[in-house]
Amino acid sequence: MGKEKNISTETIKRLIIYLRYLDTLNKNGIKIISSENITSLLNVQPSQFRKDLSFFGEFGKRGVGYNVDSLANSIRKILGVNREIDVVLIGVGKLGSALIQYTGFKKINVNIVSCFDKNPDKIGTMVENIRVEDIKNIGKTLKRTGIRIAILCVPVEEAQSVAKYIVGFGIKGILNFAPATLVLPAEVNVSNVDMASELGNIIYYLK
Amino acid sequence: MGKEKNISTETIKRLIIYLRYLDTLNKNGIKIISSENITSLLNVQPSQFRKDLSFFGEFGKRGVGYNVDSLANSIRKILGVNREIDVVLIGVGKLGSALIQYTGFKKINVNIVSCFDKNPDKIGTMVENIRVEDIKNIGKTLKRTGIRIAILCVPVEEAQSVAKYIVGFGIKGILNFAPATLVLPAEVNVSNVDMASELGNIIYYLK
Repeated sequence: MGKEKNISTETIKRLIIYLRYLDTLNKNGIKIISSENITSLLNVQPSQFRKDLSFFGEFGKRGVGYNVDSLANSIRKILGVNREIDVVLIGVGKLGSALIQYTGFKKINVNIVSCFDKNPDKIGTMVENIRVEDIKNIGKTLKRTGIRIAILCVPVEEAQSVAKYIVGFGIKGILNFAPATLVLPAEVNVSNVDMASELGNIIYYLK
Repeated sequence: MGKEKNISTETIKRLIIYLRYLDTLNKNGIKIISSENITSLLNVQPSQFRKDLSFFGEFGKRGVGYNVDSLANSIRKILGVNREIDVVLIGVGKLGSALIQYTGFKKINVNIVSCFDKNPDKIGTMVENIRVEDIKNIGKTLKRTGIRIAILCVPVEEAQSVAKYIVGFGIKGILNFAPATLVLPAEVNVSNVDMASELGNIIYYLK
């Protein structure tokens, strides 16, 4: 399956939501589902669901519905998570530690396999079976494993320099939890998660 | 200060980023700063910074710069975080527990003061000095405290019903970590944080 063009990030995010739901259905032994069934819990319109899928081909049978297992596998292929994806995590503070233990990544086949920090007190300690490594050694790990995706949980003051540093070792995608807008080469894909800012936003509009 | 109209959520999110940075400068004893100084680390253009502030009045002096402390206080007033804001958290799993300990909320004056779960094994246990309460008792807490904001970390299957339940007790703003689009009355402000979906997005575009 080649890379389809002009697919919005919103469509991709919804595909991941569909996938997690299909996996839940599958576990519960549900084999066939209609677009109405799949979207009612997720609060997505059936038309939106069908449109999202239409970018990638024909799925499901009119009047019959979707085969849960095969649709899940098709979405996994579309997203590139039909195989396990290994990522590294940088900055093993409270949030970083929680993310290492967060099961939501595993559900989309993503494994945090290595984590890094610069704090000598943390280096060598274990978080959920993963040894905290010295950030200075990240180049070796990335070279050995071919990992290209990093989860960045360092303090805001360090985010830009650490991001630049790891991009120098081949990182091409960053999930950034630091409240900074990273300036990186155009080919590096960055998604920002700023939880406090989302909460501040709610507070402002409630004022 | 009344509620200004037509301010984008992006502007509000940047104000929070400015605020956190100003607080860091303040701690480091820096009193005056130019828009170039404030934006260089945050990777925001000085013109964007000045435009964001311009919605709310006049700040800083041409040729002199911005007083760090007074600008921080002005932004706190604009955002409504010039006083401490109490919120509740619902769903004390790994992510919920980490969020209770996350310092990023505290930095914008937000305190998680109560947390709730439905799991009898969790009710009564302590997470960072907060006792996990039975979700059935949330109405009493909300009535007594007047809290209107909730952080929602329950499983996707429960997100909609729990959201509806707490809105029934007066919640008006929800920071939602469950990968579901909540359907709630229009006056309820919802921000969604879906970390796995952000990561899936990066994987798709790297494929």
